[in-house]
Amino acid sequence: MSTSLHSLADRELDAELTQCRAEFDALKARGLALDITRGKPAPDQLDLSAAMLALPGDDDYMIDGIDCRNYGELAGLPSLRALFGEVLNIAPESLVAGGTSSLETMYDVLSFAWIHGMGGAGAPWSSSPVKFLCPVPGYDRHFAITEAFGIELIAVPLLSDGPDIDVIRELVAGDPHIKGMWCVPIYSNPSAVTYSEQIARDLLSMQTAAPDFRIFWDNAYAVHALVGDAPEVLDVLAIAAQVGEPDRPFVFASTSKMTIAGGGVSFFAGSGENIAWYLGHLSQKRVGQDKINQLRHVRFFGDAAGVRTHMRKHQQILAPKFELVTAALRRGVGGSGIASWTDPSGGYFVNLKVLPGTARRVVALAKEAGIALTPAGSAFPSGNDPQDSHIRLAPSLPSEHDLRLAIDGLCTCIRLAAAELVHSERCGGMHLSSVSV
Amino acid sequence: MSTSLHSLADRELDAELTQCRAEFDALKARGLALDITRGKPAPDQLDLSAAMLALPGDDDYMIDGIDCRNYGELAGLPSLRALFGEVLNIAPESLVAGGTSSLETMYDVLSFAWIHGMGGAGAPWSSSPVKFLCPVPGYDRHFAITEAFGIELIAVPLLSDGPDIDVIRELVAGDPHIKGMWCVPIYSNPSAVTYSEQIARDLLSMQTAAPDFRIFWDNAYAVHALVGDAPEVLDVLAIAAQVGEPDRPFVFASTSKMTIAGGGVSFFAGSGENIAWYLGHLSQKRVGQDKINQLRHVRFFGDAAGVRTHMRKHQQILAPKFELVTAALRRGVGGSGIASWTDPSGGYFVNLKVLPGTARRVVALAKEAGIALTPAGSAFPSGNDPQDSHIRLAPSLPSEHDLRLAIDGLCTCIRLAAAELVHSERCGGMHLSSVSV
Repeated sequence: MSTSLHSLADRELDAELTQCRAEFDALKARGLALDITRGKPAPDQLDLSAAMLALPGDDDYMIDGIDCRNYGELAGLPSLRALFGEVLNIAPESLVAGGTSSLETMYDVLSFAWIHGMGGAGAPWSSSPVKFLCPVPGYDRHFAITEAFGIELIAVPLLSDGPDIDVIRELVAGDPHIKGMWCVPIYSNPSAVTYSEQIARDLLSMQTAAPDFRIFWDNAYAVHALVGDAPEVLDVLAIAAQVGEPDRPFVFASTSKMTIAGGGVSFFAGSGENIAWYLGHLSQKRVGQDKINQLRHVRFFGDAAGVRTHMRKHQQILAPKFELVTAALRRGVGGSGIASWTDPSGGYFVNLKVLPGTARRVVALAKEAGIALTPAGSAFPSGNDPQDSHIRLAPSLPSEHDLRLAIDGLCTCIRLAAAELVHSERCGGMHLSSVSV
Repeated sequence: MSTSLHSLADRELDAELTQCRAEFDALKARGLALDITRGKPAPDQLDLSAAMLALPGDDDYMIDGIDCRNYGELAGLPSLRALFGEVLNIAPESLVAGGTSSLETMYDVLSFAWIHGMGGAGAPWSSSPVKFLCPVPGYDRHFAITEAFGIELIAVPLLSDGPDIDVIRELVAGDPHIKGMWCVPIYSNPSAVTYSEQIARDLLSMQTAAPDFRIFWDNAYAVHALVGDAPEVLDVLAIAAQVGEPDRPFVFASTSKMTIAGGGVSFFAGSGENIAWYLGHLSQKRVGQDKINQLRHVRFFGDAAGVRTHMRKHQQILAPKFELVTAALRRGVGGSGIASWTDPSGGYFVNLKVLPGTARRVVALAKEAGIALTPAGSAFPSGNDPQDSHIRLAPSLPSEHDLRLAIDGLCTCIRLAAAELVHSERCGGMHLSSVSV
């Protein structure tokens, strides 16, 4: 990456470094305590669902002929499956409405495969080495689940229309130990890429050496547009069936970032065979779902249009924060060649790229100045960003005031880390720690 | 078992069989459709928690300085842990408040042990054969969880003060593959036995060949008295620490049979080391608990006394149903020597014993007459009751009217099956199927 720093004379670079250090010292002296680490909704987003806290109401518990208070209905309430089937473009019979956490559903699905295998002749995944493909940058909690099982993660590049299909095709065709792949097909975490229909088709139809290869298709941000309307959700189950791989996709979604973050409803979808396999194992764990919470969601949204109306209210709160972040970055480090960033049309994150070799340093400097960022490298398997250049920004939780302070401060850290790097390069590779402030 | 049937002359026995068949035909002709299979609460029990359906209310979401709506608090709300810590006689810091299903927590704990082992030097349980001890009669869903992992279940007798400790001592001392044991220490399912403190101490302190032996201590009915007050809950964590086996007990409980059956709160308790181990693995699955549902429970109960008051209301609904069952059994098959049953002071079940070799037949006859019973043998590992004599009755769900019909009909089936058996024995072991009606 060529930067304007590189064109400075030695004396000018010394002055720039001195100036950046002074600005950083002034930043530290402000004693900030800001946190932009995680994609948590802000209190005013949670307020949008305030009515839900009194639902369903003390004489409302029957729907679909079911007393929602008692045990039962492992696949979830038919009314909620129909409502979110429309939102997620999935037939209700292919959609299970579950508990509060889609992450938990992903873990459970993996643990069922691990302990029992995928049914039929397939052995438990634990019986031989397992590898997963991870488009990067990606979601750290996805990677953590698979790492917890001792699964080897293989990073593959995420391009502007989806994961690099040529790289992936070659990998999965040649290695029967590659059993799965993580995908966030709409507004991906953290780079907000939405997969094209062609890439989706290629992923669903490509030849794999493993007969029980599965795509963990986490549609976490399907309706979470920041600009305009969200894209139409692909009917991946129909595509998978068309191309003769009906069992390949495991689809996940949740309302965590629609209603109550800690008390939403998660969804799982798949082929008839996958649903039977999932519910068969789930029946050992649970006697049914929390149907009162599911009823609460039916009453709150009413129908699929209600979900879209509600998501526009989130957009109205979130979009200004994202605009603020990109404006502050432009103001602070724009045109310098030391940083670039995404301008997402949906999802929860801005993906920031700083000078290779400085991301960890930027995060450390920010921490010193009281600004908590997601650890550098967290969007890569094992936390290892080979370029040390990616930083995930999560603008949702702080107030606009705090967010502006945080990003302005972050820019100071980016400039200092860049000046340190170029200075150390100029001085013959002097080690960074020796110029640390 | 000696019965009055055995003292009948051949002609009298023929007449008895004819009479029983006639009564059974009349029963069938009534076209009943009754279900006493599972321990589900009745609608009027669920009505006791009607106020909960509108809680916490649309401006109530803060407690303990926590916004219950957002992510976080993997160990659950401090206020709820304190409240149920008092109910369950467990220090709040040793108690985790979780999701809606304690069965799920048990499955998760087992899967963590299976995949990762118990921490320290211990290997994953999946790496060698695992056996569990199962006091019988016991809870079919416990057995099903362990069977789903391919764990070998070893039945041990449940006596009137707890599991047969002599049998257990010898088994666990000699076999390092015995890694765990299922226990329901208060009002056990289905025989309503409450373990004595001595048996509890012996279980917690006995020598085991497996260094990572764990007791799955499911306190499902801790406060579920049918007569008077529930016994004081033993502080098993303190006992375990005293005897030098702090990590042996995994304690489980839930509010499923207190508030909303499908939407309660589950609890997990253990030593500091076990809690750290559990939360460490759980953190891969979840970003926090459903704290709104936990807040709902805090607001509804208020304090531990509120739980006790609430459970007395359940008692007032349930006790008459249990009295009705035992009265109907006395009336229908009392003094005949062909059946005996428990008269439980707590829990959710009556454990019925019929003539050895007739339990399956009784359940089949009842089914034919439109009365659904828990499958015979379900209280034994692999559904195999070696004596074929146990039937679990679940009186909670039906109305008193339906329950009376069901038990009266059941008595007809018990009498017919007994008459068939004695008749076939008298006729030189003629096979049962040839005398089936």
